[in-house]
Amino acid sequence: MAAEAVKTVDGWYCLHDMRTIDWTSWKMASADERNEAIQEFKNLLTKWEDVEAAENGSHVLYQVVGQKADLMFMFLRPTMNELTGIETEFNKSRFAEFLRPAHSYVSVVEISQYGGNVSADDPKIRERLYPILPKWEHMCFYPMDKRRTGDENWYALGFKERARLLYEHSKTGRQYAGEVKQIITGSFGFDDWEWGVTLFAHDVLQLKKIVYEMRFDEVSALYGEFGEFFVGNHLAKDDIDAYLQV
Amino acid sequence: MAAEAVKTVDGWYCLHDMRTIDWTSWKMASADERNEAIQEFKNLLTKWEDVEAAENGSHVLYQVVGQKADLMFMFLRPTMNELTGIETEFNKSRFAEFLRPAHSYVSVVEISQYGGNVSADDPKIRERLYPILPKWEHMCFYPMDKRRTGDENWYALGFKERARLLYEHSKTGRQYAGEVKQIITGSFGFDDWEWGVTLFAHDVLQLKKIVYEMRFDEVSALYGEFGEFFVGNHLAKDDIDAYLQV
Amino acid sequence: MAAEAVKTVDGWYCLHDMRTIDWTSWKMASADERNEAIQEFKNLLTKWEDVEAAENGSHVLYQVVGQKADLMFMFLRPTMNELTGIETEFNKSRFAEFLRPAHSYVSVVEISQYGGNVSADDPKIRERLYPILPKWEHMCFYPMDKRRTGDENWYALGFKERARLLYEHSKTGRQYAGEVKQIITGSFGFDDWEWGVTLFAHDVLQLKKIVYEMRFDEVSALYGEFGEFFVGNHLAKDDIDAYLQV
Amino acid sequence: MAAEAVKTVDGWYCLHDMRTIDWTSWKMASADERNEAIQEFKNLLTKWEDVEAAENGSHVLYQVVGQKADLMFMFLRPTMNELTGIETEFNKSRFAEFLRPAHSYVSVVEISQYGGNVSADDPKIRERLYPILPKWEHMCFYPMDKRRTGDENWYALGFKERARLLYEHSKTGRQYAGEVKQIITGSFGFDDWEWGVTLFAHDVLQLKKIVYEMRFDEVSALYGEFGEFFVGNHLAKDDIDAYLQV
Amino acid sequence: MAAEAVKTVDGWYCLHDMRTIDWTSWKMASADERNEAIQEFKNLLTKWEDVEAAENGSHVLYQVVGQKADLMFMFLRPTMNELTGIETEFNKSRFAEFLRPAHSYVSVVEISQYGGNVSADDPKIRERLYPILPKWEHMCFYPMDKRRTGDENWYALGFKERARLLYEHSKTGRQYAGEVKQIITGSFGFDDWEWGVTLFAHDVLQLKKIVYEMRFDEVSALYGEFGEFFVGNHLAKDDIDAYLQV
Repeated sequence: MAAEAVKTVDGWYCLHDMRTIDWTSWKMASADERNEAIQEFKNLLTKWEDVEAAENGSHVLYQVVGQKADLMFMFLRPTMNELTGIETEFNKSRFAEFLRPAHSYVSVVEISQYGGNVSADDPKIRERLYPILPKWEHMCFYPMDKRRTGDENWYALGFKERARLLYEHSKTGRQYAGEVKQIITGSFGFDDWEWGVTLFAHDVLQLKKIVYEMRFDEVSALYGEFGEFFVGNHLAKDDIDAYLQV
Repeated sequence: MAAEAVKTVDGWYCLHDMRTIDWTSWKMASADERNEAIQEFKNLLTKWEDVEAAENGSHVLYQVVGQKADLMFMFLRPTMNELTGIETEFNKSRFAEFLRPAHSYVSVVEISQYGGNVSADDPKIRERLYPILPKWEHMCFYPMDKRRTGDENWYALGFKERARLLYEHSKTGRQYAGEVKQIITGSFGFDDWEWGVTLFAHDVLQLKKIVYEMRFDEVSALYGEFGEFFVGNHLAKDDIDAYLQV
Repeated sequence: MAAEAVKTVDGWYCLHDMRTIDWTSWKMASADERNEAIQEFKNLLTKWEDVEAAENGSHVLYQVVGQKADLMFMFLRPTMNELTGIETEFNKSRFAEFLRPAHSYVSVVEISQYGGNVSADDPKIRERLYPILPKWEHMCFYPMDKRRTGDENWYALGFKERARLLYEHSKTGRQYAGEVKQIITGSFGFDDWEWGVTLFAHDVLQLKKIVYEMRFDEVSALYGEFGEFFVGNHLAKDDIDAYLQV
Repeated sequence: MAAEAVKTVDGWYCLHDMRTIDWTSWKMASADERNEAIQEFKNLLTKWEDVEAAENGSHVLYQVVGQKADLMFMFLRPTMNELTGIETEFNKSRFAEFLRPAHSYVSVVEISQYGGNVSADDPKIRERLYPILPKWEHMCFYPMDKRRTGDENWYALGFKERARLLYEHSKTGRQYAGEVKQIITGSFGFDDWEWGVTLFAHDVLQLKKIVYEMRFDEVSALYGEFGEFFVGNHLAKDDIDAYLQV
Repeated sequence: MAAEAVKTVDGWYCLHDMRTIDWTSWKMASADERNEAIQEFKNLLTKWEDVEAAENGSHVLYQVVGQKADLMFMFLRPTMNELTGIETEFNKSRFAEFLRPAHSYVSVVEISQYGGNVSADDPKIRERLYPILPKWEHMCFYPMDKRRTGDENWYALGFKERARLLYEHSKTGRQYAGEVKQIITGSFGFDDWEWGVTLFAHDVLQLKKIVYEMRFDEVSALYGEFGEFFVGNHLAKDDIDAYLQV
C-alpha cells in the first residue's frame, strides 16, 4: 500500500542562475563598452532592489569559488513568468554578452507539513514563504533527493517515521540558529532533483560544519542523495566595479 | 518464466525539441535580418497551426525556465517522416541560425491496455491518441523508466500486479482532473528512456504538486526512475515579437 | 567455478557513424560549393553501392529523428582497415566540412552458438554473417550489455540456462518475422558496450513494439542493460539533393 | 538512532585549480606578448611566494600528466575571499587568456578528532592546519566520499568503529612516512565530494603504491568512493620560461 | 580485518594519448604548412624510434576506429617527467595545431606478485617490465577496476582466493599466446581507473574473442568493471603521408 503523501505550503518561485565570465572577451572590449555594460547591469540590480524593497521578491548575488562558475544569482518571485522575465532581460543585456551559462536550478520555496498544518496566513509562515534573502558573507547551494532503493525507500516509509526522522534532523539545524540560515525549495516537476537547499552564513566554515554534522543524521545517512555543491562569497553592488576592473 | 507483456494502442508520433538562443549573435544581426527571421518563424508557426486546424497534428511552444534551454517545442504528427520534415525545415530557417540544440525526445502517444482492450475506433480513445495539445500557461516534460533491479523489477511483475499498481496511480492523477492534463508517450526503440511524460497546467504549482504526490504512489516509489525535467511558460505567437525584441 | 563461455562465429566488421549537419555553415557556402560537396558525397555513395553489388560489404544511410544527430551511416566490411578507410575518405570529403561528429559504434556481425554449432560454410549462415542490409523505411540502433550484478549475473549463469533464456527470447523475435529485421553485432574489445542491435522495419511502430515486448522476456527483464537509442528514416541517394537544398 | 558525528578542527581554505594551455593561441601570440604574459605570471608567483614566506598561506604548481589539464595549482589561504581574490587576479592576467578551465576543487584543511581532542593551539597541530606545502617532485590529487549504501554506510556506523577503521588506515599511511606527505581537506558544503586528498612524493611510484595498498584497508575496501585522479610533476618558477618556450 | 595487500613490481611509466584530427583546418592549411607539419611529426617519430632502439622506452601509433579519436599513441618511458616531456614537445609541434585532445591515460607497467616473488633482475621479468611494444596490426585499450560492492568486494577477499581467481584467469589468456599480446599497467593514484589493459593482435577478431571469453572467467564475471574501449589499426610511419594527404 502506498505511503501517505505529505502536504506542502509553497511560496515564491526560485531561480538559481550561475554564469561564467569570459575574461578574454571582457578585456578585449573597449573601456566604454565595459562601462556601459557595468552601468546597465547595476541598473538591473537597482531595479531588483526596488522589487525587494516593495516585498515583491528578493535576490542575492555571490561570487562562486572555483571554476564551476563566477557568479551565482538567486531570485525569488511570486510567479514563474517573472523568473523568465528576469532571465530574458538579463540575457539581452550587454553584460550577458561576456558571460557563458554555467548552471541553473528552478524550484519554489516550500514548507512541508510533517509537524502539523501550517497556515499561509500566519505571519511567521509568511516570512518563511516569502523571505527577504540575507546578504550574509557566504552562501552555498546544492540539490538533493530522498533515496528510493531497496530497503532505503523514503517514499515507502510511513508518514510518522518520516516526520520523526525530519524532526530529529531539524534539531541539528537548530544548533546553527543565528549562524546558518537555510531555505528549502521544492523542485518536483521543475528540475532534476527533488529539492534545492540554500544556506547562508557569516562564517563560511559553518557551512561545512552543518553539512558534515547533518550527514550523520539518520535521515541523511540513509535517505539523502546529494548533487553538485556551489559555494560563494557575497558580491555587493558597490564591489562590482572593482571586481570587473581590468 | 517471463511476465505477460502488455499491449498498447499508439497514436501520433511525438517530438520534443528544445533550443537555446544565442542572444549575442541575435543582437549582432541587423534589425532587418532579425525581422526576416522572426517573420519566417511566424510563418512556420502559422503553417503548423493550419495542420492543427485540419486535425493532422498538433504543436505547442513554451519558454523554458532556467538555462537548460530557451524554447521547448512539442510536435505531434501521424508519421515519423513528418517529424523529421519539421526538423529539417526549421533547421534551414533563418531563426535557427541563432539557436543551439539543447535537447530532444522522440516518442509516440501511447495507451496501454492494462484496464482491458481499448479500441482506436472509440471516439474517446481517438481523442487521446490524436490530441490537440492544450495551450495552457505551463508545461513540464520528463522521461522515465520502470526499474529493473533486484526485487524491484517491473518487467518481472505479473500482469495483474502491474495493472493494480497503475490503477492506484491513476487515482492520484484523477484528483488533478481539470488542473493538470497529462500525455503519456512511449519511446521504446526511439529514445533513451521508456516513456515521456508531458504535463500541462494553468497554475504551475499544480505541476509540482502532482509530481510530488505521485512519488508516494507505490508504483513510483518502487519502480519509477526519472530523467531530466524541463518546465516552461506558454509562448504565444503574438508574444514572439516582444520576446525577441532587442 | 567459471561458467562455460559460448563460441561465436563472426562475419563482417561494422561501423555505425552518426553526424550532425552544421546548417548555418552549409547555408553560408556558395551554391557551387554545396553542389560540389553533394556531388562528391553522392560519388562516395555510388562507390559504396559498387562494393555492395560485388558483395564485398554493405551500407545504409538514415536520417536521425531528433537532435542526437542528423545522419546515421551503417557500414559492413570484411576488415577493420576498410572501415577506417571509409572514415578517412569521408572525413577528407567536402561534405564532411559541414558535419560535426555525433556518435559512432564499432562491432562485428556475430552469431552465437547457443543452439549448437553453426558453420560459416552453410549458405544460410553466410547470409547472416555477410548480410546485404535492407533499405527499409526505418532503422533503430542501440548498444547493450548483459548485467553482472548480485544475483543477476549473466556471466555466472550456466550455459544451458543462458541458452534457454535466449531461445525463449528468440521466440518473441520470430513473431516479428517479415516486420522487423534484426542484426546483432558483438563489440567486446571494440567499443563500450558488449553488443550492438540494429533493427529495420517498414513500419516504425514495429520497432517500438518489439523492443517493448522483448523487455518482458526474462533475459531482458533480468539481464538487459541498454544504452542510447537512435531511430531514423531511410534517406535514399535520390533524396539527398532535396534534403540538402537550402 | 543517529550515529555520533565527529568534530573537526579546520585550518586554511584550499583551492585546487587545473588549467589547460591553448598552445595554438600561445604560438600565434607575438614573442612580446608571450614574454609579457610570462613576466606577469612570474610576478604573481613571486607575490604568492611572499605570502608563503610570511606564513599567510601556501601554494604549489605542478605540470599534469595526460590530457586532463596542463597545470595544477594548489592554494591555501586563511579565508575563502583570498581564494576568490587569487582566482580573479589570475583570470584577469594575460597568461590566463591562453588557458582554458579544466577542473577545480574547493575545500579546507581538516583534522578529525577520532583520536581524541586536538587543540589548534598545539604547535604540531598548527603545522598540520596551516601547512607550508612541500615542493616535492610529484603530486597527486583526488576527491573521495565515504559510502552510504545498504550494509556499507559510514554515517550509520558507531563512532568507535569508525575510529578503529581510521586508526588501522593510518597505520598504512605511516609506513610511507618520509616518502609520501598527505594533506586531507574537507569539502562538505563546498564541493561535490566529501574530502580532497593531496599526496606529495619524491618518487612518483610511491603515490601508486600507497593508494593501491590503502585500497585493501577495511575502511577503503568497504567505504571508500573515489573521484577523478590528477597526477603531476613539480614545475618550478625557474622552469616556466623553458616550459612555455615555443 | 583487512585483506593482505599484494606487492607489485613496476616498470616503465605509460601514457596513452588519443587525438582527433580537425580535417577542415588541415585542408585549409597550405600544402607547405602541411608538409612542414608532417615532416616535423615524422622527425618526432624518428626521435622516439631512436629512444626505442636504445631500449630507453617504446611507443606505438594506431589509427582509432570510429569517432572517439583518430590517433592513439602509447608511450613507455623510465620516468613520468619523460612522459610530460613528450607531451609538451608534441603539443608545441605544428601538427598538434590540427589536433584536438580526445582522451589520455596515465599508468605504469605492473607485475603483481600473486604467484610468488618476482625479481626485477630476472631477464624474463625485465622484458615484461620494460617491453618493446609490438607493432602488430591491431591494438585495443581499456581501463578497468575491481569491483567493491556488497558481496563482490575484491579488496575484501583473501590473498589466496584472489591468487586463485587470477591464476584461473591467466589460463584463458594463455590460450591466446602468440595471437594476443597483453600489457597490464597499474594506475592507482595516477588516473581514474585502477588498471589499463592494452592488447595487441595480428587478427583484430582475436581481440574480441579474448575479451568475450575472459568475461566468463569468475574474476571478470564477479569483479571486473570496465571503462571505455579504444580499438585501432597500426599506422606505420611510412603510411603517414598517405593518411594525411588531402
